Amino acid sequence: MIDNRAHINPQAKRNKPSVDIPALFKRLRKGNIAALSQAITLVESTTVSDGIIAQELIACALPFSGSAFRLGITGVPGVGKSTFIESLGKYILAASKKLAVLAIDPSSSISRGSILGDKTRMEALVKSDLAFIRPSPAGTTLGGVARKTREAIILCEAAGYDFIVVETVGVGQSETAVHSMTDFFLLLKLAGAGDDLQGIKRGIMEMADALVINKADGDNQTPAKHASREFKNALHMMPAKIHAWPTQVYLCSGLHDKGVDIIYEQLVAFQEHATQNGHLIIKRNNQELYWLHQTVKDCLNDRFYNNPKVQKQVSLLEQQVLDKVKSPFEAAQELLDLVKN
Amino acid sequence: MIDNRAHINPQAKRNKPSVDIPALFKRLRKGNIAALSQAITLVESTTVSDGIIAQELIACALPFSGSAFRLGITGVPGVGKSTFIESLGKYILAASKKLAVLAIDPSSSISRGSILGDKTRMEALVKSDLAFIRPSPAGTTLGGVARKTREAIILCEAAGYDFIVVETVGVGQSETAVHSMTDFFLLLKLAGAGDDLQGIKRGIMEMADALVINKADGDNQTPAKHASREFKNALHMMPAKIHAWPTQVYLCSGLHDKGVDIIYEQLVAFQEHATQNGHLIIKRNNQELYWLHQTVKDCLNDRFYNNPKVQKQVSLLEQQVLDKVKSPFEAAQELLDLVKN
Repeated sequence: MIDNRAHINPQAKRNKPSVDIPALFKRLRKGNIAALSQAITLVESTTVSDGIIAQELIACALPFSGSAFRLGITGVPGVGKSTFIESLGKYILAASKKLAVLAIDPSSSISRGSILGDKTRMEALVKSDLAFIRPSPAGTTLGGVARKTREAIILCEAAGYDFIVVETVGVGQSETAVHSMTDFFLLLKLAGAGDDLQGIKRGIMEMADALVINKADGDNQTPAKHASREFKNALHMMPAKIHAWPTQVYLCSGLHDKGVDIIYEQLVAFQEHATQNGHLIIKRNNQELYWLHQTVKDCLNDRFYNNPKVQKQVSLLEQQVLDKVKSPFEAAQELLDLVKN
Repeated sequence: MIDNRAHINPQAKRNKPSVDIPALFKRLRKGNIAALSQAITLVESTTVSDGIIAQELIACALPFSGSAFRLGITGVPGVGKSTFIESLGKYILAASKKLAVLAIDPSSSISRGSILGDKTRMEALVKSDLAFIRPSPAGTTLGGVARKTREAIILCEAAGYDFIVVETVGVGQSETAVHSMTDFFLLLKLAGAGDDLQGIKRGIMEMADALVINKADGDNQTPAKHASREFKNALHMMPAKIHAWPTQVYLCSGLHDKGVDIIYEQLVAFQEHATQNGHLIIKRNNQELYWLHQTVKDCLNDRFYNNPKVQKQVSLLEQQVLDKVKSPFEAAQELLDLVKN
């Protein structure tokens, strides 16, 4: 049946070598890195035939997903994400866990992939058979990138990876997306120059399960300690999380591998805690339903605003609202009336 | 033309005395409180004929709206909102400004209108000819209540009110709604018992343009000062606002009328500042477009999930996602395919 569907599309028949999905999935399940890479490439592909194959793969992988710990990491460029992940990765690998690092970089279509460049710096991880590092594609929409990353997580888990790191830079809504697909969300910060404490984006502090001040070494130790105190005060004002795990502030130096061991231990402790009290499964179920309904919402909106009748009227109605000719509710109703179901 | 439309609906003809909209609006423009009350009642009404009349009135009022300062106030029950508003109101009235107080209470359909009860306590305001106090209706949806409140603001402004206070309790999304229809959003807090500092809801701190610790009197002065320091530290971590007005922490006692004068002065200073640098008009335009597109989004979602085909399938698909039979994206697509435009 699977092969039939893949062959329905004549494009696939003509231009692409047919993919033996059961065979590919079997190799992926055995942890074959080439198979995993190929599977993720299919997920990332924008051609229709690849999309069909990718969905078959996801359907195969889904029942085998969910066993990994999913860690989200965010921070501005220059905060030392790669160095931190490399340092953290050593502890993960030392515990005989398989590590996958995925990156969402919504800016990469503009900046030509700064994260991709970083990846080559994770030398210790690149050399290990237990680590899989994959920069994200330069997606055209965040929704698209988020979906592909979410599906890459599923494939990595089916391939036996125990620890998935999803990293992002704080562009647009990417942090919300990563927060909504991970078990634990870690905000990486710098003290002093380069990462203004006042420049934290709305909502990020409240999303964070841990706040890590990186590069707390050398002359930076005093400002880092000062920043730590400030963050602790700020966190004291934040609402408690559903999983009842208090957000802590950590100081570390990814470069000198100082303090990262404690963070690793805390992540393991969190995983145990949230698994035992059932909050991890609640969180993940909420995330699944969030993606279901968020996808519906986004598509409904896209459909609507891509409708030629709406496109023809929307600017005019916006202007009428700003000119106080119509109330926003009246204008909304006029727009909605253009597209009847 | 207006009268014709009002008479199209036979229901209106049979059951209601016909409303002379131009005459009603003329009285409203003169500041007649009975006319304003009647107009808001029409806006709040759920009957179709009233809705048509209400929209005619809003259309008349729109060009005369926008001149008032719109202050949003939120805080948990017991924080002393009514006492604070009464104390603040004295300064507003002393400046010969006309004050309208509107209340959104999404819980009132359950609690039978706690805010309504409070209103009778604003004795000094109730007595003044310059003050208009109006509790919100017990709405069935927040979107509906928000729209009615938004329209009540327009009517009050057309009736010559200079200062509109929209108060709410922190239930559900009501604070976001009030934040999105006011120029300045004031978060009222208590130190110590009764309003746990950790209990601040997500995003509220970041929405606040000012944080006021009320009941900072008697034995409460020391904990209030302590809370003030903590909040200042927390605010230091918050992102700067578009209007570049730093969020300040104030101590006051609404009951003993201490510190409220300074808050009033700051509100006036903000209004001048934001008017002069153009940020007020930018903020309001953004709010108008927010309500336009938010209304579209909400209605699209409602339409979709009220579709019988969708209602029949949604629980099943949700369960399949939780059972890992389908990915959330696949399930979303299946749902979307049920309703084609």
